[in-house]
Amino acid sequence: LSENLDGRNRPRPYAAGLDAGGSFTKGAVVDRDGRIVARLRVPSDHGATGPAIGRGLAGIVRRMLMDAGLSDDDLAGVCISAPGVVDAATQIVHSCPNLQNWDGLAVGALVASELGLPTILENDANQAAVGEHWLGAARGRANVICITLGTGIGCGLILGGRLYQGATGGAGELSHIVVAPNGRPCTCGQVGCLESYASGRAITAQALALGFDAADSPPERVFAAAQEGDPRAEAIIQEAMEWLGLALANLVNLFNPDMIVVGGGLAATGDQLLDPIRAAVWRWGRGWLADQVAIVTAELGNDAGVTGGAAIVFNAKGKDDV
Amino acid sequence: LSENLDGRNRPRPYAAGLDAGGSFTKGAVVDRDGRIVARLRVPSDHGATGPAIGRGLAGIVRRMLMDAGLSDDDLAGVCISAPGVVDAATQIVHSCPNLQNWDGLAVGALVASELGLPTILENDANQAAVGEHWLGAARGRANVICITLGTGIGCGLILGGRLYQGATGGAGELSHIVVAPNGRPCTCGQVGCLESYASGRAITAQALALGFDAADSPPERVFAAAQEGDPRAEAIIQEAMEWLGLALANLVNLFNPDMIVVGGGLAATGDQLLDPIRAAVWRWGRGWLADQVAIVTAELGNDAGVTGGAAIVFNAKGKDDV
Repeated sequence: LSENLDGRNRPRPYAAGLDAGGSFTKGAVVDRDGRIVARLRVPSDHGATGPAIGRGLAGIVRRMLMDAGLSDDDLAGVCISAPGVVDAATQIVHSCPNLQNWDGLAVGALVASELGLPTILENDANQAAVGEHWLGAARGRANVICITLGTGIGCGLILGGRLYQGATGGAGELSHIVVAPNGRPCTCGQVGCLESYASGRAITAQALALGFDAADSPPERVFAAAQEGDPRAEAIIQEAMEWLGLALANLVNLFNPDMIVVGGGLAATGDQLLDPIRAAVWRWGRGWLADQVAIVTAELGNDAGVTGGAAIVFNAKGKDDV
Repeated sequence: LSENLDGRNRPRPYAAGLDAGGSFTKGAVVDRDGRIVARLRVPSDHGATGPAIGRGLAGIVRRMLMDAGLSDDDLAGVCISAPGVVDAATQIVHSCPNLQNWDGLAVGALVASELGLPTILENDANQAAVGEHWLGAARGRANVICITLGTGIGCGLILGGRLYQGATGGAGELSHIVVAPNGRPCTCGQVGCLESYASGRAITAQALALGFDAADSPPERVFAAAQEGDPRAEAIIQEAMEWLGLALANLVNLFNPDMIVVGGGLAATGDQLLDPIRAAVWRWGRGWLADQVAIVTAELGNDAGVTGGAAIVFNAKGKDDV
């Protein structure tokens, strides 16, 4: 029995995508047309260490297979995203503040040894970008910048129709480009990172600094207050989205993309978020490049990561360096 | 007789690369191993318009063929670089301040109609990047940012082993990324562009502002004065290279390249230029990405563009979108 074929000598028809975040781990079993045949969402296990992390993730895959009435032989493989930096060559997680026990582990290999299936580890924003490119907002687009706006700012790059990972899998560190060299301190130890101006965390920090209650300072609440006309909230959102738009204008000048897709928790605010970004890209980007780029919200929501993981399994080109 | 084969049914063994700048137009006829068998350097013709531009460039190709004892049938094609923006799909030049009569023209088509040979138009920094990747400092590297530091700042991107052009051929507009949103006015009409802080033009402007004579203010002279210990010149160079290094640190975070190659007129200053750039990339780039990147000067000098042009002709993949 070939690794890539099932019991009837067909290409294995399903893949599993797992999307592990600081709060929840989401999983799906997906067929080659992108249909989700099983899904699961469980609290992420912050207590597990080493091989137990692999056993936990393998358990999620097994439970989904059982729910769908499938066996291991039906799966072409598994792709897991980490909320941190993944070294593409060694498949080891680096810098994973939201799942600290993953740091330094080859989590994919741990899962592979449990399941006996090919297992790939990928950065979470990259996995989501592949999902939006396969089935979501970026379908059919060759050059797409997919950002994930939440507590931080994730970024996955589709260039020439494929995921671009860079030399070691670290491309797209948008959250920590320096936009204000003498500016605000960032959680990373640097000063002036985009994350300190344009992320959910930055919006909350500004809201607290302006005297918002803790309950009113989550970024979703600040967006809502701005929508209701609170001038302080409007100013916070306007400033944050201008910084993000300035950074994206620079990315438009560098990458000349077809499209920018904004996903993540805050993308639900839609035009409230997109309009100031669009205005800033128009203001700061070169005209003939800003003309080219559609700026839209993601379409797949929480399914972007898990379907992207399946796409990466099905199509090695999805994860290769371009 | 096939277009791609010579009289003896072999792949045509040579290609011509032309590199048209504001002052000079350089040309070379290059074989498939990268050997230059003829070269020419003539003042650029600012008087010619329309089809006469094509005739002038075709004349350069014909003269090189005559010098090398070759005929049109020996040439696989011609690639010409413009010192401006080239629309990859329409092959029309946009925004070409240093050869203004080229603006709006399909210069490649004009040359093709003169010579009856496939002719490609490309941006000058892209052509030079392909040259350094084929035969120069970036040989064998998959992901390389090639910058050209002169009056402005050119940028060609080799990603996944190929030239990356973006959606419409405009990728790599490094000179006009905005690094200081309320900063110095730029010649492009924007404010705060990198070009206003880190280019040869910026160095000259700062030197004049500090009271340097016109004769002492070209960037090469300011570099030389800094080398000789003039503290004002040292401060100008240090500031300019810190801005450039900050921008390159952000590109390291976004592209995760193997290598940054610095070419162009000012690259001859070597470590005087590279050391402050390296320090800034180390200071501002993410550690695990800054660790990966070699920062070196270009190797091909004035031959980068013309050999890159030949490579683009020989290898369509050299110019395709990645």
